[in-house]
Amino acid sequence: MGEPVGIALLGAGNVGAGVLRALELGADRYAARVGRPLAVRHVLVRDVARRRAGVPRRALTASLDMVLADPAVQIVVEVMGGEQPAFDYIRRCLESGRHVVTANKEVMAKHGGELLGCASAHSVRLLYEASVGGGIPIISPLSRDLLANEVTGVTAIINGTTNFMLTAMAQRGSDYADVLAEAQRLGYAEPDPTADVEGIDASYKLAILCGLAFHIDVSPGDVARTGITRLTARDFRYARELGYAIKLLASGRLVEGELVATVQPVFVAQGEPLAHVDGVLNAVQVEGDLVGRVLFEGPGAGPMPTASAVLADVLDVARDLVAGRPPAESISYRPIKVRPAAKVVSRFYLRVTVADQPGVLARIATILGKQDISIASVIQFETDADAGTAELVITTHATPGGKLASAVRQIEALPVVHEVGNVLPMVGG
Amino acid sequence: MGEPVGIALLGAGNVGAGVLRALELGADRYAARVGRPLAVRHVLVRDVARRRAGVPRRALTASLDMVLADPAVQIVVEVMGGEQPAFDYIRRCLESGRHVVTANKEVMAKHGGELLGCASAHSVRLLYEASVGGGIPIISPLSRDLLANEVTGVTAIINGTTNFMLTAMAQRGSDYADVLAEAQRLGYAEPDPTADVEGIDASYKLAILCGLAFHIDVSPGDVARTGITRLTARDFRYARELGYAIKLLASGRLVEGELVATVQPVFVAQGEPLAHVDGVLNAVQVEGDLVGRVLFEGPGAGPMPTASAVLADVLDVARDLVAGRPPAESISYRPIKVRPAAKVVSRFYLRVTVADQPGVLARIATILGKQDISIASVIQFETDADAGTAELVITTHATPGGKLASAVRQIEALPVVHEVGNVLPMVGG
Repeated sequence: MGEPVGIALLGAGNVGAGVLRALELGADRYAARVGRPLAVRHVLVRDVARRRAGVPRRALTASLDMVLADPAVQIVVEVMGGEQPAFDYIRRCLESGRHVVTANKEVMAKHGGELLGCASAHSVRLLYEASVGGGIPIISPLSRDLLANEVTGVTAIINGTTNFMLTAMAQRGSDYADVLAEAQRLGYAEPDPTADVEGIDASYKLAILCGLAFHIDVSPGDVARTGITRLTARDFRYARELGYAIKLLASGRLVEGELVATVQPVFVAQGEPLAHVDGVLNAVQVEGDLVGRVLFEGPGAGPMPTASAVLADVLDVARDLVAGRPPAESISYRPIKVRPAAKVVSRFYLRVTVADQPGVLARIATILGKQDISIASVIQFETDADAGTAELVITTHATPGGKLASAVRQIEALPVVHEVGNVLPMVGG
Repeated sequence: MGEPVGIALLGAGNVGAGVLRALELGADRYAARVGRPLAVRHVLVRDVARRRAGVPRRALTASLDMVLADPAVQIVVEVMGGEQPAFDYIRRCLESGRHVVTANKEVMAKHGGELLGCASAHSVRLLYEASVGGGIPIISPLSRDLLANEVTGVTAIINGTTNFMLTAMAQRGSDYADVLAEAQRLGYAEPDPTADVEGIDASYKLAILCGLAFHIDVSPGDVARTGITRLTARDFRYARELGYAIKLLASGRLVEGELVATVQPVFVAQGEPLAHVDGVLNAVQVEGDLVGRVLFEGPGAGPMPTASAVLADVLDVARDLVAGRPPAESISYRPIKVRPAAKVVSRFYLRVTVADQPGVLARIATILGKQDISIASVIQFETDADAGTAELVITTHATPGGKLASAVRQIEALPVVHEVGNVLPMVGG
């Protein structure tokens, strides 16, 4: 067996510690599968004085220059997270001729095109399986296994924190604030949960998936986002009675050559596989013209599942290094226009709190009718005798989002309407 | 754009026609993704006089020698099916320096090791994504994306015909003969359904999966097989009442360094994802030490899904050809011992038809007790007053298969026992 393949790790947080532990436990099998041992030569951290379980002290460094000055480093693994300095570090590693494996969704979503071009220009590889879906293979299946398809749609549950929360709300009838507190207690949600609950994390991952699936340049800003903070226990009760689950879906498709990319809570019919992806699980469904629908499901986070994805990329690069295989040509991405939300057609669920008096429904129905929105069902679910209010749950047939938004504005202006609660798209069923 | 990449197709049946149609429809995008056009130069068939829709007549040939004599053929796609002459043809193509893409589960299960060695010796690639799970990416994820894991188990529904039949039995309470006739009418089952209903097809696919998952030499004969022909409508009724589905599971794992590979009907608890894979869908669940559990689900058959997998392999080889990338080293497989079924531990479901009289259960319980088999539940489900019989459904705690088999023989010998119906393992719950 020849010289070890030299590896540097940037970052030694949860994921970094998982990667180091896996490399240690699996050293023999990785050597066998690659044909040479893998050797971690440097671990870049901010504070070299801090002790870290499982991190060899002599490997610690705070200087990227030191990493780059070591000619034995062939693969750099970036697991720092965050946009900066990770973005600069990855670029400098690629420019120095190092292959890079990253788990960084934010950097890949915002700067993936530039970095992949940089890798190509320097004849090295940039791999990022771990940036979406944790341990679930999805980047590589989209890049390779489904490459014969024209992908027509990607629909995914790719944020474990919010899926845990929505599952708890559905199963226990809890309110948003309670499940958020529980998720924070369990360590699933951050003290500041914004990136998860507002769909920002999911929008990064969706941008990456859409780029790969459709071979287009996408930025996170192209993704229309709605978070889960306005959902109430009542929405979940009505969803169940209508035969739906509520999921934070990340969804991308091309409509008349324009991109429709959304992260939003959606009513998902119980017959859909995604309706049954519960707890912290993630799942990605891909639709292609040849294959139809395929679904990939598994743990979307956690140090060891993420290490599984990171190390798959590392082994792939290392095997190529040993065999002397140059990088394959990268597939070029084309620019894309984003379709305005007003033109996107969907069925919708509306929850409206109204005065409990005759004629209210007629007025709402008139407004919807004037916008050519046809009603699929209306159910009066709750009556609050003290407040003199009732709650109407309306589902519509397919209609452009713009028409619905305009109708909602008019409904809200009716004196008999106290509030239009959530307005959510519906899929399946 | 340079010279086309020359392709020869062996076989022009359903899958072959799907591959040709996809190559025609996707010609432009494949050229863009590969960097050169793909050109089908020969289609090998038995009878060149027969007309085939979508097959260019001038490309038809009955002679493999003619295919091999054409230096422009770089990739051979084998979609004939069956062991011979496909096995010989694939070997001759590899020996002549051609890359081969095959959808042939039987050849890969029986001769995969030899053919992969042959490919390696001739510095060409042999790819077989389409041999298992139709359009679902599973060979490549096991080979690459999960390579960092020690895979501990593979559990799959990999025969669409039987899954369609079992789903119909579960949903409609139909009997085996009726659903078989329906599956034959719909073209899901062959006039001679043996390969599907006896689990032979699934055992080929499982042998391939186990080889890849555990890096071992497996032959289809190492897989213990039980078909679905003895299942009755009553088994499905009892399963439902106990909270289980009945699925033909293909399952492989290593226990104390020995292989346990089985294809058999299994009681699958409703909480398990595989319990909800219905109709002609396939699904493969992989358990690894790092990733935990991941599930791949999709269409397991059909010309276009299979073409999706075949062409993914073709594009992969073609991209390597264009980039001048040599094949990677193949990972070596080690021999394995098969664990005797008698030592394999499981929970079990037993259905026993007995005389409807006091003391019967005591005698059965005594036999089980003497074998150290502990009973989890007993339910008396049916009484047939005319025949004077009752039906006992017994579930056990985990016990070695050998002990259970010996107890079943003694129970069958009891004069008060009319028949021991199905004895099925149980998973989950």
